[in-house]
This record gives sequence, structure tokens and C-alpha cells, in this order.
Amino acid sequence: MNPKPPEHADTLQTLTARANHALEQLFPAIETDDVLQDAMRYAVLGGGKRLRPLLTYAAGRAVGDDGPALDAPACAVELIHAYSLVHDDLPAMDDDDLRRGRPTCHVAYGEAMAILAGDALQALAFELLARDRQPTVSDATRVTMLRVLGTACGAQGMAGGQAVDLNATGKRLDVPALERMHALKTGALIRASVRLGALAGGCTDTRTLDALDRYAHAVGLAFQVRDDILDVEADTEALGKTAGKDAAQDKSTFPSLLGMQASRQRLRELTEEAREAVAFLGAPASLLATLARYAAERGN
Amino acid sequence: MNPKPPEHADTLQTLTARANHALEQLFPAIETDDVLQDAMRYAVLGGGKRLRPLLTYAAGRAVGDDGPALDAPACAVELIHAYSLVHDDLPAMDDDDLRRGRPTCHVAYGEAMAILAGDALQALAFELLARDRQPTVSDATRVTMLRVLGTACGAQGMAGGQAVDLNATGKRLDVPALERMHALKTGALIRASVRLGALAGGCTDTRTLDALDRYAHAVGLAFQVRDDILDVEADTEALGKTAGKDAAQDKSTFPSLLGMQASRQRLRELTEEAREAVAFLGAPASLLATLARYAAERGN
Repeated sequence: MNPKPPEHADTLQTLTARANHALEQLFPAIETDDVLQDAMRYAVLGGGKRLRPLLTYAAGRAVGDDGPALDAPACAVELIHAYSLVHDDLPAMDDDDLRRGRPTCHVAYGEAMAILAGDALQALAFELLARDRQPTVSDATRVTMLRVLGTACGAQGMAGGQAVDLNATGKRLDVPALERMHALKTGALIRASVRLGALAGGCTDTRTLDALDRYAHAVGLAFQVRDDILDVEADTEALGKTAGKDAAQDKSTFPSLLGMQASRQRLRELTEEAREAVAFLGAPASLLATLARYAAERGN
Repeated sequence: MNPKPPEHADTLQTLTARANHALEQLFPAIETDDVLQDAMRYAVLGGGKRLRPLLTYAAGRAVGDDGPALDAPACAVELIHAYSLVHDDLPAMDDDDLRRGRPTCHVAYGEAMAILAGDALQALAFELLARDRQPTVSDATRVTMLRVLGTACGAQGMAGGQAVDLNATGKRLDVPALERMHALKTGALIRASVRLGALAGGCTDTRTLDALDRYAHAVGLAFQVRDDILDVEADTEALGKTAGKDAAQDKSTFPSLLGMQASRQRLRELTEEAREAVAFLGAPASLLATLARYAAERGN
């Protein structure tokens, strides 16, 4: 007897392909002497789980939409994610040589070009969202989506979380402080991914938007707890990036503060929190529940 | 007899103060242990000519508006400019220690924080433009403004120009190639500054928008020619940044390709082109003409 296939495996595969296809359209594989374009393409199309676009698509489905209006926000959040990885990996930041099993962008293209590629990817995310012309999305909603993305990226979001992380290296944070940091550093963009999907999907109901936000908050944190556990468990080859760096850099992590067993327990709680938050939406939200489990159980 | 005061001197002073005031509102001078916010504030509020906000205000006036709808776009273009300087100055880029007579952001705050401050300033520009709620600007216009800004910042704009510049160091460009590079590197944001002012000011007339764009193109190029001339002429103290770097880095410049005399002649032509482009708008465009002269004649 075959093992039970993971729930929604086909759907996730289809939506990952949809995200990859949409992203590839942004960087046509033409011969070019445009090094910046090459570096941007390299940073975006080098694999990756596409968790953020998947969350955008799943949030759209949860509110009853699966149309082309989801593609621009799905790409936009992945572009932001890709830019953040390029800048995170820089020598002045985490100084990582390996990402998704390949040389990082600055190793492949040089540090200056990697800085510019990250900068241009951030701009492209906003441009793409502003340029999209899906008739199902009103201009008012589009402005809201751009505001949500801007807030998620900036000093009150991802960049702010990275700054807190930077200043925390070598200090011992407590668990609430660690959770606050991650709520900004990875959580803000994950929440934006869900929110943009819901908005592009036409959702205006405050109760639903709030529930989706609670879901996204839990998923974002679960994703990070899992990341910390993987960093302890995995070797570099399986992870596709340098493993054991957290301990080497003396960073506070969930395992270092809680131990592995309590970290795994926290992961289960967060997955349950996420599932419960969107349970009232019924079957359309089942893909969101699957993604919450995926974020908590993934192997890399 | 006193010398004739520069045209619009009072107006320019008032509008510069208006831009500075609007920017200061974004970074309240409260005691904070938020280093990222401090680094952003340092990068934005450290002086500067505020040419881009002035162009936004002047374009708004040229189309008949001088209201509060101009403030968000004026701040947005200055935030983008400030972020680009922070990243440009990084060791991996131009490696400059001095900017506006003060230590550059990475000298003051460290390289990692400077990268993040630049990233967060870019996000803030888009957020600010999306968050603004002036009733005179429709959502459709706001989406257009966000698209214009995104395009100006990205691979087809400022970041693209910086990449061309990076690859051109040590190579000899010809004048058309040099002008194409600057049209992206500094020109794109200057054109966006003018376009955003016109759009926020309610302009929908294609002829006017096109004329303003020709104006902005000429001003952007004039600004750069003047920059190259100043780099040759000025000493570091007067310039407030490291002088003579172009020659030291073996960069193609207008003086190195054309000589100083022809560069000054090109500057006069560009100023005249800019003035002519908007002459049909009459008196409301006179501030734009003054700014064109200022860009071409400024002493730093």
C-alpha cells in the first residue's frame, strides 16, 4: 500500500509552477549583456519554496478567488523575499556564500551588483503591483495593497526586524523579544503575502481579514521556529545553505532558549493556532491549513 | 546698489523649508534606541539641496497646484535619493567616507545598518505615497504615481543606470553612451520628481506632461554635466564630498570626453532646452526655469 499522499500535493505543485511561470515572465531568458538583469534573474529564479506566493494564492482561494489578479501580488512578495535574501547574504550582513545550494548573488556577481540587484528587485515589486491592470481589483484596493507591501518591507516591518536582529547578535534575547523580532523580520512579509492575496481576491470583510492576519502571524512564527530547528538538525548539504550558523554567530534561537523539545511543542501550538484562526472559512481555507503544516514540518 | 537677487530666491527658500519640514515629520526627533530609525534620519536630514522635492513643487505650480498633495511625492523622491546615496557610498560601491560634509551613513552606523537604512528608505518612499490621503488625488492617479516611482527606481531607471556606471568604470564611453547612462542613473528620478508633481497637481494633459518630461530630461542631464565639472573644479571642502574621484576612478565624464569648454557649452544648451520646453506654460513655469538654471550653475 502506498503511503497517503500529502494533502493538496497536486495543488501545491500546480501553484508553485504558476508562481515560477509568473516570475519567469518578468525575466525573459534572452541573451543579454545586461548584468543587472542577470543578477536579478539569478536571485529570483534559483529555486526556493515559493512559500510566500503560495500563501497569496491560498489566501485568494480562501476568500473565493483564484484568478489572474493573484499573480502580481504573488510575484511582488517573492521579489521582496528574493531581494532580502540577496542583501542578507552580503559580507557586511550574514556573509553567506551558499544559498539554495548555489553561490550567493554577491559571490556570483560581485558585491556591488548584488546590492543593486536587491535594490532593483525591491523597486520591481512595487512597480509590478502598481502596473498590474486586473479589472477585478479597484484602484482603491490597489493603493491599499501597495501600502500594505510598503509597510511590510520598511522600518516597521522586514528591514526593522533585520536591524533588531543585527543589534541582538551576541546578546541573549528572551522568548517574547525573539518572537517580536521574528514577527518583523519574517512575519511582516508573510502577513503581507496573505493580506495581499485576500485583498486581490476581493475580500473586504474585516472579520475575515483579521482572522487571516492571525493565521499569517502564527505561520510566520512557525516558519521561523522550524528554521531554527533545521539549523540545529540539518547538515549544510541538505539545507542548501550554511548550517549551524546561528550557534556560530551566537544568535538567540528558539532551540537555544527553549530547548529542542519545547521548540517542537511550540511549533505544534502555532500550527494549531493557524488552523483554528481560519477554520470558520471552511473548505476554501483548507489549502491555508496545509501550508501552515508545511511551514512547520518542511525539511529545508 | 545691491546686486540683483537671484530670481525666486525667497520662493526657493520657502519651498526648501517646506520640504525639510515635511521630511522631519517622518523622523520625529525623539529619544530612541532604534538605530535603524536613527540611521534613516541621519541619511535624510543631513542637509542636501532638496532639488528633487523642489522640482516636484515647481511642477505642481506649473500645472496650477500648490497644495498639500505635493508633499508626499516631494518627500518620496527625496527618500529615494537619500537611499541611493547611502548605497552608492558603501565600500563595495563608491567607497566614500564623506557626504554633505559629514561622515557617510556606513561610517557613522556601520555597513550593515547602512544597507538596511537604504532598503528601509526605499520602502518608506512607496509606503508614504500609498498612505497619503489627499482628496485632490484620485486612487487611479495615485496608482500611476506609484508606478512612475517604481519604474524610475528599478532596472529601467536609477538602479539600472548605476549598474551601467559600475560596468563602465575603466572603459571609455562615448558621449551618447555617457548621456544614456546618466539619463538612467540620475535622470530617471529627476523625471519622476517632475512627473509626480504634475500628476499630484492634477495634470492630465498629455502635451503638458510630455513637455515637462522634456524639461526634466534636460535638467537631469544638466545636473550631471555640472556635477562632472564641479568634480574637476572644486576641492573637497567646498564640495562636501570627496572631490576628484571621477579621475581617480578612471570614469568617463563630460569634461574628460568633451573638455571643460565644450562641457560648459553643453550645459548652456541643456538649460535653454529645459526653459524652452516649458515656455508655453507661461508664468506658472518660471520656477521650473529658475531650477534649470540652478541645476546648471550650482556651486556644489
